Amino acid sequence: MCGGAGTRFWPFSRESRPKQFIDFFGTGQTLLQMTVERVRRLVPEENMIILTNERYADTVREQLPGISSEHILLEPARRDTAPAVLWAAHHIAARDPEASFVTLPADHVILKEIAFQEALHKGFEFIEKAERLLALGVPAKGPNTSYSYIQKGDNLDWNSSIFHIKTIAEKPSREMAEIFVKSGEFLWNAGIYIGKAKTVIDAFNRDVPDMASLFDVPADCYCGEKEVDFISDIYPKTSSLPVEYAIMDRAGNSYVLETNLGWSDLSTWNALHSISPKNKDGNVTQNCRALLYDSKNCIVAAEGDKVMVVSGLENYIVADTPSALLICPIEAEQRIRNIVNDIRQRYGTDLT
Amino acid sequence: MCGGAGTRFWPFSRESRPKQFIDFFGTGQTLLQMTVERVRRLVPEENMIILTNERYADTVREQLPGISSEHILLEPARRDTAPAVLWAAHHIAARDPEASFVTLPADHVILKEIAFQEALHKGFEFIEKAERLLALGVPAKGPNTSYSYIQKGDNLDWNSSIFHIKTIAEKPSREMAEIFVKSGEFLWNAGIYIGKAKTVIDAFNRDVPDMASLFDVPADCYCGEKEVDFISDIYPKTSSLPVEYAIMDRAGNSYVLETNLGWSDLSTWNALHSISPKNKDGNVTQNCRALLYDSKNCIVAAEGDKVMVVSGLENYIVADTPSALLICPIEAEQRIRNIVNDIRQRYGTDLT
Repeated sequence: MCGGAGTRFWPFSRESRPKQFIDFFGTGQTLLQMTVERVRRLVPEENMIILTNERYADTVREQLPGISSEHILLEPARRDTAPAVLWAAHHIAARDPEASFVTLPADHVILKEIAFQEALHKGFEFIEKAERLLALGVPAKGPNTSYSYIQKGDNLDWNSSIFHIKTIAEKPSREMAEIFVKSGEFLWNAGIYIGKAKTVIDAFNRDVPDMASLFDVPADCYCGEKEVDFISDIYPKTSSLPVEYAIMDRAGNSYVLETNLGWSDLSTWNALHSISPKNKDGNVTQNCRALLYDSKNCIVAAEGDKVMVVSGLENYIVADTPSALLICPIEAEQRIRNIVNDIRQRYGTDLT
Repeated sequence: MCGGAGTRFWPFSRESRPKQFIDFFGTGQTLLQMTVERVRRLVPEENMIILTNERYADTVREQLPGISSEHILLEPARRDTAPAVLWAAHHIAARDPEASFVTLPADHVILKEIAFQEALHKGFEFIEKAERLLALGVPAKGPNTSYSYIQKGDNLDWNSSIFHIKTIAEKPSREMAEIFVKSGEFLWNAGIYIGKAKTVIDAFNRDVPDMASLFDVPADCYCGEKEVDFISDIYPKTSSLPVEYAIMDRAGNSYVLETNLGWSDLSTWNALHSISPKNKDGNVTQNCRALLYDSKNCIVAAEGDKVMVVSGLENYIVADTPSALLICPIEAEQRIRNIVNDIRQRYGTDLT
């Protein structure tokens, strides 16, 4: 899934180039490419389906030349993850009614690749045995208010790391988030779901029948030109709903696998700072030649080999692109959204 | 005179592009072009002589297409102003032994153009009457330690603004500078000198005979190819000496005209900040689309139309070019020289 747009990493992320399409860490790979790379050993490329907004079609084709065009599903309207996952389930079931699949957000970072692969193995094994849906949950390390939380219910058996899902709560208040973390019952929701295609379709039929009925057509509608026409007709009629609310939170057969993936959804500069390697003064530098003097706990990010001289700053974001520079205290990063709005009003949408 | 190199305005000024060649205020004219513009009403272009280091020949020709190549004198070695002024005096005298001239540094700013033109008129009148050299001095507004100071001696007559020069002191200590300003006897030296070519040559003969003898050749040596060969032979042998030490400070016939030119030698970002128009928070923005939040007394400078978002900074320099960014407290700007050295050591001279 790589259809999201975002402004929180402006000036790096733009509406025309959201963060999944950026080489965020200067490794030579974008977050999307890293996501594909991460599952390549488990899932052959010909079995990968890319879901994205139609405006990013060219970007996806360019960044993933190994994925054939018929596996790139272009959303004709901006909706949340529920319609996207349901479409993918039908698209897959039309080819193999017994197929299983995993949904992966393409704009997250996962540092522990082996734990990730073990979790997927374990997850696929788990959902093959019965009609079940499985989410991956990460031990909550702090009261992050921009995350979705999964409350663990009963353990599947005494030594398992798989739990029934009791509830899912998105973007809690600070107070609630602190209670969640303290309770030890809540996991961060990594947005990774595993299930058989038909189990997912069944869950939608049961829990979101209005949306499900739109997609309920003969299998040959999920092929080639026919699929494009069909989707462009029904997709705009779907509700904007996240998949965890549509089915995971309601399905009695939904579970969570607790696993430490070294995961971050990279939703904020602060999140990026906390997972990145730091120098002795706590500074993170990305994609640039940085010279820091009297500076602590800063993120200094640029493009190419730019020389970034930062003197006398503590706890600041310095993010530079050829057309825009941002200098902002890390603690004030929620202001970036307003800044981007200001820029839109003053200078139009070119820069956002 | 536009041969100087400097790093104090890095990353804008580079050794390959010192500040006189930069459109510093985003007016569409470089400091050199503004200097030429400023005297165009008094001195026709065909009488202007540009003195610069040979490495800047192309830049000067490009920025001043109206000046013919034979009036661009290329210094084959880096020396201070004394050899440059002496060469200019000979070059001019070879064409007209009675000619007068004024030397103008091309990297200063003069805001009061009318006062400047009046001062030049008055100055030329003054030096035509007798064998005299005249400097322009500006009321010292503060104990700037990077300036040269001229101590006024006796007044020429009771209501004149022209004084004998008692002494010239360059880059005094802070304590000395404060005494200078308090005394009321000292002026900032604007580096502008007026005299007849032959008076200047006589002063060198008297005060710096070793340097003077190098230039003491028949007038036809100061023409075309012959001049180029001759200068490339003798110039490297001259001492690096500022003209005020070579002749102005010693010549018994040297005077200073006190005049308020709205002058700054633009030697520091702080100097730039103090002469520039500011918004209500004391911020100066140049050559960019700046959005400032919770920021005071900053200088935000870029190139082109870059969007510069600065949040939560007070008293900082933010200077951006495509290849380098500098963020530095204004009070720490003397550190820029060290920073530039660090960059040279790490990344070579391309960026400095």
